[in-house]
Amino acid sequence: MRRPLPGDCELSVLTARDDDVDSLDVLRHSAAHIMAEAICKLFPEALLVYGPPVENGFYYDIDLTQSLTPDDFSRIEEEMLRIIKSKRPFCRYELPREEGMVKLRDEASRYKIDNAERAEGSSLSFYVTGENRGEDFEDLCRGPHIPSTEWVKAFKIKQVSRSFYRGDVNDQPLQRVYGTAFFKKSSLKEHLEQLEEAKKRDHRVLGKTLKLFSINDQVGSGLVLWLPKGSVVRTQLQNYLTEEMVKLGYDIIYTPHIGQLGLYRCSGHYPYYEDSQFPAMFETDRGKAIQSTLQFARRVKNMSGDELAQGLSAVSSMVSAACEAFGAIDGIDSNSSLDETIDRLHAELATEQGYLLKPMNCPHHIQVYAAEHRSYRDLPIRLAEYGGVYRYEQSGEISGLTRVRGFTQDDAHIFCTNEQLVNELLTTVRLTRTVLETLGMTDYRVRLGMRDRDSDKYVGSPENWDKAEEAIRIVAKESGVDFTEEAGEAAFYGPKIDFVVKDCIGRSWQLGTVQADYNLPERFKLSYVGRDNKPHTPIMVHRAPFGSMERFVGILIEHFAGAFPLWLSPVQVAVATVSEKSAEYGRGVFEQVKSAGLRAVFDCGDEKIGPKKHRLRADKINYILVVGEKEAAEGAVNINDRDGRSLGNMQIDEFIAHCKEEIATKGKCPVVET
Amino acid sequence: MRRPLPGDCELSVLTARDDDVDSLDVLRHSAAHIMAEAICKLFPEALLVYGPPVENGFYYDIDLTQSLTPDDFSRIEEEMLRIIKSKRPFCRYELPREEGMVKLRDEASRYKIDNAERAEGSSLSFYVTGENRGEDFEDLCRGPHIPSTEWVKAFKIKQVSRSFYRGDVNDQPLQRVYGTAFFKKSSLKEHLEQLEEAKKRDHRVLGKTLKLFSINDQVGSGLVLWLPKGSVVRTQLQNYLTEEMVKLGYDIIYTPHIGQLGLYRCSGHYPYYEDSQFPAMFETDRGKAIQSTLQFARRVKNMSGDELAQGLSAVSSMVSAACEAFGAIDGIDSNSSLDETIDRLHAELATEQGYLLKPMNCPHHIQVYAAEHRSYRDLPIRLAEYGGVYRYEQSGEISGLTRVRGFTQDDAHIFCTNEQLVNELLTTVRLTRTVLETLGMTDYRVRLGMRDRDSDKYVGSPENWDKAEEAIRIVAKESGVDFTEEAGEAAFYGPKIDFVVKDCIGRSWQLGTVQADYNLPERFKLSYVGRDNKPHTPIMVHRAPFGSMERFVGILIEHFAGAFPLWLSPVQVAVATVSEKSAEYGRGVFEQVKSAGLRAVFDCGDEKIGPKKHRLRADKINYILVVGEKEAAEGAVNINDRDGRSLGNMQIDEFIAHCKEEIATKGKCPVVET
Repeated sequence: MRRPLPGDCELSVLTARDDDVDSLDVLRHSAAHIMAEAICKLFPEALLVYGPPVENGFYYDIDLTQSLTPDDFSRIEEEMLRIIKSKRPFCRYELPREEGMVKLRDEASRYKIDNAERAEGSSLSFYVTGENRGEDFEDLCRGPHIPSTEWVKAFKIKQVSRSFYRGDVNDQPLQRVYGTAFFKKSSLKEHLEQLEEAKKRDHRVLGKTLKLFSINDQVGSGLVLWLPKGSVVRTQLQNYLTEEMVKLGYDIIYTPHIGQLGLYRCSGHYPYYEDSQFPAMFETDRGKAIQSTLQFARRVKNMSGDELAQGLSAVSSMVSAACEAFGAIDGIDSNSSLDETIDRLHAELATEQGYLLKPMNCPHHIQVYAAEHRSYRDLPIRLAEYGGVYRYEQSGEISGLTRVRGFTQDDAHIFCTNEQLVNELLTTVRLTRTVLETLGMTDYRVRLGMRDRDSDKYVGSPENWDKAEEAIRIVAKESGVDFTEEAGEAAFYGPKIDFVVKDCIGRSWQLGTVQADYNLPERFKLSYVGRDNKPHTPIMVHRAPFGSMERFVGILIEHFAGAFPLWLSPVQVAVATVSEKSAEYGRGVFEQVKSAGLRAVFDCGDEKIGPKKHRLRADKINYILVVGEKEAAEGAVNINDRDGRSLGNMQIDEFIAHCKEEIATKGKCPVVET
Repeated sequence: MRRPLPGDCELSVLTARDDDVDSLDVLRHSAAHIMAEAICKLFPEALLVYGPPVENGFYYDIDLTQSLTPDDFSRIEEEMLRIIKSKRPFCRYELPREEGMVKLRDEASRYKIDNAERAEGSSLSFYVTGENRGEDFEDLCRGPHIPSTEWVKAFKIKQVSRSFYRGDVNDQPLQRVYGTAFFKKSSLKEHLEQLEEAKKRDHRVLGKTLKLFSINDQVGSGLVLWLPKGSVVRTQLQNYLTEEMVKLGYDIIYTPHIGQLGLYRCSGHYPYYEDSQFPAMFETDRGKAIQSTLQFARRVKNMSGDELAQGLSAVSSMVSAACEAFGAIDGIDSNSSLDETIDRLHAELATEQGYLLKPMNCPHHIQVYAAEHRSYRDLPIRLAEYGGVYRYEQSGEISGLTRVRGFTQDDAHIFCTNEQLVNELLTTVRLTRTVLETLGMTDYRVRLGMRDRDSDKYVGSPENWDKAEEAIRIVAKESGVDFTEEAGEAAFYGPKIDFVVKDCIGRSWQLGTVQADYNLPERFKLSYVGRDNKPHTPIMVHRAPFGSMERFVGILIEHFAGAFPLWLSPVQVAVATVSEKSAEYGRGVFEQVKSAGLRAVFDCGDEKIGPKKHRLRADKINYILVVGEKEAAEGAVNINDRDGRSLGNMQIDEFIAHCKEEIATKGKCPVVET
């Protein structure tokens, strides 16, 4: 922060406010340095790895044999407070690369040395927490930092979790210590209150207590088992969306969960997204051998010293053995460098046959389009599927239903002509809004994800991109929603309209998406015969109003705090008897409710009605029908909601009719106005 | 056949009749020898591989550079006829193993040498087609054969397709020539007529013309793309079954399509069924390296001569390289034999983490059961899923929807107590019968698949098997269906009740299945707390009334010859205008029909009504509503069915009401009795 400007440069001004995200990042990264110093003081054997700011806070990865627990947090926090109170400035200095490396080899952890080796530029920069270089804590760092430690007015260590060096499960396991920091005490308080409220609504906790879903290590991290009750919610959502889609002329299809690698080579999903995919299933032993050698060689790339030398020798043995078994590999010989070997092995995989768990449904839907000869009269063709897709998220990033490795997209692809594009986009935007608003998610903003013109990660010609981005802009304007444009947020094949929804405690979630794509149809050489009797390339719209069923239901659980509206509710009605005397009448009521198609349970246990109601309320059952002798005499039920309110008595037929109305209107006409 | 009995032995008498399957096998295997001789005469460079009898005929695999086509069949058949007419006897002789091997090395193909090397016993047997050993055609063969070539009274070469040596796609591609043969000319005629009728109904052909499904090599062999129309059929079947299941107290669930290998190690699906599974996705480079080395080593096992020597050396290099990269592999050193190496690599895979495309849903459903603490009060728990599973069928065995690599089981698992077992089995048998009979499949037999007591492929204790088999027997008797017991037809975890359905042209299909399983719950240590407050192991029922949605729909297409009943039909109603004059009225009718929820198309093209009706009939649309000026005046429609019958006029409301009745009764109350 005190560093003189290096010459002509771009300057941005940060203000010490908790609503300025960039400033907060600087503050939090400085807090990470302070925490690192505190940890090193208490645990001198700790090796520091990397400590960036993240959303809502910061973390520091450390290599430490002893497992840190929440009990250690207060000791670390006390130490941090001491550092903050000592009002030490953050002081930057630079060393020529060689000199810096010598210093690091003498003083720093192997991770810092490795980081420095990877860093670009002719010099290395360091930050000292204090003015006494050589005595005070210092860290290899690009900065910037706050002027002085005292700027941290509020902070807290939040949790510790397992991570791996460079996110590679084959590499060294580390501890990731998370914290947060603010410029104002009141901001921390607010943040912690929001966390507290979020905790009560945590879908991972509610998912367990309400028996909605289960995830376990036997099946695999990030792979969701939908329990019967969670499945009801998902099925109801899917049925609702399917009804809306059928009205709009969509066709439902089913496709497999795997495809030949060639499909994804053509679409660009493979090997581009190889790192975030489950390993390809090569059919041939040659493919498998190259795949294993490549994975090992990439790991060797992260090695250093003796380990590196041994690794290089092993790579060379694996390559020779593969050549002996399967014949020479083009472009690799005993002189090839590790990088050349990696590039060549990678390229070689492109020739091997195998399968991939599908990371997206688009290539399959494209094949359905291509299965028939198409004319302009057939367009638009709207193909929808609840398609299971798989992505290999890093283990540290997996969480409940919201970050998973297998999920179900409420996916559809519309194939249309140029003239139809805007109208199709508009209809899908309208559908997305209807769906979100039906679920009470009325507070959203719209983000137009455009390409980053400087990046090479996008496929297709600039002309196609211009056309697609223009269509997206027109649609956003015509829809009458507030929107912002963000460069670099497009899909790799086209720009998109994302719906960012604020839930009832103020958190933002990216949900529904609508995308315009001129590129994949070209790559797959799709065509239709136009009015002019000539072949034309259709345009594709990708869209998913929910996004992912897993993620969406996870967010819905938190949005409703587990108390689903009647139409979605796993158990809608409980019939609870006051005593043995009304058991027979109660069973009759239960049978009547059930045969009317309502999801119901019957509780005729010996328990007193008070605790019984309490227990049924905890299950978030919408209506608890209490039946005693009075109700039996009148053919009525006493209606109680899950918030503990008594809603009076009603004839059983009348109650059922009202429930059906509440379900049919998706909650607009509740059984009893409250 | 002329061989003297070798001593004490089991003797079975074969009769030369076309309804004696064992005799037909002998005849057809002899016909395979005759065909092989004919092919060798016409194509002297052909190398013979293997020629067994199969269902409905026989084949011979040959290695021949020139591709055989149907044009070659008649030349081969002529040559075969000459051999048959020459009335040559089949003469067996044996040679001591060494002497036989010398002879083969001099005369026979490398495949025959390889077959002989694999054969057990101290001698090798040969069959000469004729009495002149050394001159007449002869083949390494265990026999038996018919006494003389003239016994083949009728035969035909049917087709040629690609196969691979030992079914391994990495090995030599071969040509598989299929033929059939009978004891009587009339049997061949009947068989060819049935084939002709089957051809008209061939679901692969109808699937294409009616646009029901598509399979292509880009997605992958045996992986089904359900087109919109086929998807309607599948969805309707699933909706129907789901309704029935909800009535019976089933819960619908969703689970991922992959699982950690540990799940399948525990269930016994892996590595037991490894050969019929897609390759496991190992997460570690070590796992992948061992997997590739193992696959290559198994291929080397099938090599011979120089190739074998080179292969062995390459295996050893691959093993050394793996040891260098990942550390020593227990039990493998430079002295290990190939078999030892294979065994050890195989065992080593058991320690590596990775994922498998699920070959069955059971382990996932077991995890759903295990996700909660269970009491006897919760049982039975009935978990149902339309679960996608994957099996790696040999490429030669893949066919349309009936033999695929990815399919959807209408799967469910019932977890119950010992006392509940028979009742649950009875209910599932009843459900299966209801489902089949609703689809007009009333001609079926029931087969009880029991264990083969001499085989070691079954898991679990004999006591559990006895209990499960007894329950299956009781249920079969109580159900009042005709049944037969077949040893060796059980699943590896328990006995089963299979429904073998005869379709309308007399072919048998194994469809629905119900299985009793004491073993998997034990292997997964499942439990519930009993009335006695102690833990007990539940029993599992596996069941699938359709079996596989792909296979079932494939068979349904043939059963109905593509003309689905109204409730299943992709397009139920077509509205066809006689001329421009009734176009407006026609559109109104179409909108009315559509908004009543019927699946409809509108055809107001210029074409004359005759060809228009013809085209719509070819699409197998159930009702074609012709509207002309007369109908417009009366508010009526003229109803035509897809067989070309006119069913008279009807008011549009009345027609819609009748359709709804026909759909609701699954065809029991058709719109018009015909």
